Amino acid sequence: MANNSGTRIGFIGLGIMGRPMVRNLIAAGFPVTVWNRSRHGIDACVGEGATEAASPCALAEHSDIIITIVGDSPDVEEVALGPNGIIEGAHAGLVHVDMTTQSPEVTRRIAASLAEAGIEMLDAPVSGGEQGAVNATLSIMAGGKEDVFERCRPAFEAMGKTLVYCGPSGSGQVVKLCNQVAVSVTNLAVCEAITLCQRSGVDPRRMLEAVGAGAGASWQLANLGPKMLEGDFRAGFKAEHQLKDLGHALDTAYAGGAALPATTIAHELFARLKDDGLGGEGTQALFKVIQAMSKAQP
Amino acid sequence: MANNSGTRIGFIGLGIMGRPMVRNLIAAGFPVTVWNRSRHGIDACVGEGATEAASPCALAEHSDIIITIVGDSPDVEEVALGPNGIIEGAHAGLVHVDMTTQSPEVTRRIAASLAEAGIEMLDAPVSGGEQGAVNATLSIMAGGKEDVFERCRPAFEAMGKTLVYCGPSGSGQVVKLCNQVAVSVTNLAVCEAITLCQRSGVDPRRMLEAVGAGAGASWQLANLGPKMLEGDFRAGFKAEHQLKDLGHALDTAYAGGAALPATTIAHELFARLKDDGLGGEGTQALFKVIQAMSKAQP
Repeated sequence: MANNSGTRIGFIGLGIMGRPMVRNLIAAGFPVTVWNRSRHGIDACVGEGATEAASPCALAEHSDIIITIVGDSPDVEEVALGPNGIIEGAHAGLVHVDMTTQSPEVTRRIAASLAEAGIEMLDAPVSGGEQGAVNATLSIMAGGKEDVFERCRPAFEAMGKTLVYCGPSGSGQVVKLCNQVAVSVTNLAVCEAITLCQRSGVDPRRMLEAVGAGAGASWQLANLGPKMLEGDFRAGFKAEHQLKDLGHALDTAYAGGAALPATTIAHELFARLKDDGLGGEGTQALFKVIQAMSKAQP
Repeated sequence: MANNSGTRIGFIGLGIMGRPMVRNLIAAGFPVTVWNRSRHGIDACVGEGATEAASPCALAEHSDIIITIVGDSPDVEEVALGPNGIIEGAHAGLVHVDMTTQSPEVTRRIAASLAEAGIEMLDAPVSGGEQGAVNATLSIMAGGKEDVFERCRPAFEAMGKTLVYCGPSGSGQVVKLCNQVAVSVTNLAVCEAITLCQRSGVDPRRMLEAVGAGAGASWQLANLGPKMLEGDFRAGFKAEHQLKDLGHALDTAYAGGAALPATTIAHELFARLKDDGLGGEGTQALFKVIQAMSKAQP
């Protein structure tokens, strides 16, 4: 194993993703200091060997790389640029790696502000969910300067398996949003195939077997299809987070003039799911909306 | 290899799928007699060892299993029930295996008419395209009586790799339509992800690499994504055939009360592709429609 003890990591955001990521960084030999908006998660991380800082600013002063994985764009802006934010702890060589999925436009704006203070920023959102965070098998999609990306590679390798450098600032967020488009519309493909099958009186397990062997095969079909049939709607990735991400995808599409007709529908259906109080269920609960729409028909 | 010389196969429909299927049946030792509406393909099949029959009726009289893979429901109806059709050559033990993708409802109607004449019918549409037909790696989704399916298994094994018995008459067609729903909407997922990426100024090859490693992975992304980027729109499976199949899927959905919002959009976009004179291109040409819609935006 590489000797990572010389690179001090500061970590902000100790949710279901952040906590196992901290654990994997510590296991890889990085000294890790943490900060969180609430007390949530701090004691667990300290118990595993992390140090606690008093603010993002204090964290920045004593870190080489600050990683954030928080809720959404306003949260990233606040910890980066707000009072006692990362920017106030600026020093030579500091890199801010934001692993939140958020707006590419806001990302570029934050990166520009940090650059004025001499802080490099990478956007490096992930896919793979809680399981990927626990097993250090996340896919990491990074935007920013390529040499900064290379400098952070050992930290990425401690948390993920597939590391893809995507281009300049914001590119990682764009690729992550494309990922959410692909994931959500493919999810919808599975929901519709199962619904058509059931409504036609045919056993959908046979259908999943046949379709999964050919050109209709997908991760969504193989992994979420069986859960839809079993009625297992526990969250691997929450529907309300997918809704947020698709909102960013549609905003980005509009800015660039990209037509996303099926994504627009998926967004609407996830919004309906949240309105129905099911935003905390897994994305496979999209199936419930298609089922409900079907029931309403004659 | 099993000795198949005692099972006489009659084959109707010698297009880009039918011809290699005949070749594989002959290679597996089946005696094969062929008939086609036009002369097209007959000489090639005879040159490879097939015998020619004068009509579907004559073909039926001298066959144990008749396989049809023709254009659409009206074509199947005509060769099965029309003048000089299969029904007129009925004899004990005759099985009609229809491998055309067509309406489940029409399938059930034909099967009922043939049953009155003592002919068993299986619906056994395929996926895998020309390449699957050539390499005998088709996926075959079969509906009808299970013992009849088992009786035809050696013939299926000569043409395909994944054989799935789906249930009573029409079930194979239902599963094939579900396959087309999954394939088309997943195709749309890929088109939208690439369009969002390009319109946001990011290299879509990086995106395909990152997305293909995770929950957005699909056969469509891995196989059609690169073709979209390279501008290779040659047909593996023609857009106009997908349009026909999605029409059957939507009819079937309507009859069963299944809501298929994304499939409805895919159908509309394939119709637009055909209107633009591009129905003969591969299904990946769906990308062109999304691109054209994007260009029209401000």
